[in-house]
Amino acid sequence: MNNRITNLFGIEYPIIAGGMVWCSGWRLAAAVSESGGLGLIGAGSMTPEVLQEHIAKCKAATSRPFGVNVPLMKPNSAEMMEVIAQEQVPVVFTSAGSPKKWTGWLHERGIKVAHVVASSTFARKCEEAGVDAVVAEGFEAGGHNGKEETTTMCLIPAARRATHLPLIAAGGIASGEAMLAARVLGAEGVQIGTLFALTQESGAHEAFKRRCLDLKEGDTKLLLRKLSPTRLVKGGFYDAIEEAENRGASPEELLEIIGIGKTKVGIFDGDIKNGELEIGQAASLLNGNDIEPVATVMQRLIFEYDQALASLRVEE
Amino acid sequence: MNNRITNLFGIEYPIIAGGMVWCSGWRLAAAVSESGGLGLIGAGSMTPEVLQEHIAKCKAATSRPFGVNVPLMKPNSAEMMEVIAQEQVPVVFTSAGSPKKWTGWLHERGIKVAHVVASSTFARKCEEAGVDAVVAEGFEAGGHNGKEETTTMCLIPAARRATHLPLIAAGGIASGEAMLAARVLGAEGVQIGTLFALTQESGAHEAFKRRCLDLKEGDTKLLLRKLSPTRLVKGGFYDAIEEAENRGASPEELLEIIGIGKTKVGIFDGDIKNGELEIGQAASLLNGNDIEPVATVMQRLIFEYDQALASLRVEE
Repeated sequence: MNNRITNLFGIEYPIIAGGMVWCSGWRLAAAVSESGGLGLIGAGSMTPEVLQEHIAKCKAATSRPFGVNVPLMKPNSAEMMEVIAQEQVPVVFTSAGSPKKWTGWLHERGIKVAHVVASSTFARKCEEAGVDAVVAEGFEAGGHNGKEETTTMCLIPAARRATHLPLIAAGGIASGEAMLAARVLGAEGVQIGTLFALTQESGAHEAFKRRCLDLKEGDTKLLLRKLSPTRLVKGGFYDAIEEAENRGASPEELLEIIGIGKTKVGIFDGDIKNGELEIGQAASLLNGNDIEPVATVMQRLIFEYDQALASLRVEE
Repeated sequence: MNNRITNLFGIEYPIIAGGMVWCSGWRLAAAVSESGGLGLIGAGSMTPEVLQEHIAKCKAATSRPFGVNVPLMKPNSAEMMEVIAQEQVPVVFTSAGSPKKWTGWLHERGIKVAHVVASSTFARKCEEAGVDAVVAEGFEAGGHNGKEETTTMCLIPAARRATHLPLIAAGGIASGEAMLAARVLGAEGVQIGTLFALTQESGAHEAFKRRCLDLKEGDTKLLLRKLSPTRLVKGGFYDAIEEAENRGASPEELLEIIGIGKTKVGIFDGDIKNGELEIGQAASLLNGNDIEPVATVMQRLIFEYDQALASLRVEE
């Protein structure tokens, strides 16, 4: 599995664990990196102080490369970047903003940069901005999502044509077969969220994990198109938003319903009735699975990938 | 490419041309079958008399197997089935209804049956109903769509687990690479709509084809969730529906905006401003392409598929 992605990040397998709010602390990031992938700490749900603590603990837990995901719409992203540079984190994934904003600054400090996009237009902008790799994330993905609603099946070939950069596919990838499908579509690596959010090392509450491992097809939907499209899990919080949207609620009213800190309530505190639950569509493919350690999940991904590839290599 | 799908239908390549309203007349069906795939006549936009005429012309144009797609929510589906049986059409694809309704009746008359689903629950029902093959169609697909909004990347593995039947992937497939990705995900064949809707042999108006070959990512969206989720092309008709939905319009009001016969206005008459335009998300991957003959499209699909497979067979 050696390719431009493994070489760029200095990892064994081109598998990145997405930086997810309340899930992606140092435990998850370190476990993924220890298993040969690239773990990301998700700064989206952290203060700069908390991020610093997680980076320090991650360094203590693994000597392998790991990264931090920084959503650029956050007001404190400059402080986050200072912490990252100070701690000499080798890799940053930026998202939800312009790839031009931090790439030069990070490169000056010897930090590799990947940027997350949902369209080929932004994949092209990444190349102009000089980032090292592009993550193209399809409609299937959990949480915040692109306005175009382009699925992974359609987005990866489009991003592949738009840029020569190393390309990482995200959205709907929760098996080795899906990893190989992403490669066939033009990706050189995968960013996996859902599957890792539901492991033992994920910082999410057990009640959240159990709820997500019980989802059926259609139990996550993209809502909040009037604000920022977000894939949510059905339940109390979801119902309130869907009801408001169906009767034509304004962005202002939707903001009021969302309130503040609801992902913490749902994902970290485990109040699955009142909190905001974010997970990808691929959760329904994990229905009935146990909450497993990262090492088990990684081993299975690689086994499935190898098996799928071998089965194609049998001449017909 | 010999497998259960090619054997079932007696075709060379496991490529089915979806039966699309106003596009899938005898010319398109015969051209696909002549090129080694399975062409379908789309009965959804036909009267029984018109269907009979198309079947007769298709038989005259090709001696190879072809089929008819019958959307079961249409009030005249019983008459359609009578015409199909009388004309001894070898294959029927049913959709938008219960697979139990016609499968036995068609089997008694020696006709092979495939049924289109958007969830693994319905894939399982297909097996119980005794159909010969299942088409699992993802969120990317044009026109009418499943309520679950499951994408092809997530739906195919789910359908693969749900049934032992020969499985055909649909939605977002417009290249040989996507065909191979669908195979990796567990499908044995593909149903392709968008790509064939925009060929020379498609019955659609040239203005419709040109508009669809000019779409960018995000230019088709799933609307009409309060009635029957439908993927539409942005434009006058789309704008009216989106505006109504954003202000919370009732199903009744939406039905009034839709009116009657708007797909004919848009797709057949080529009034792209006022008509209803349906195409899949994959259209944006064809941006700038010419309106080509089916034979050219089929050759390219097979070439791309072979190339993609060969590139995976090179040992790393």
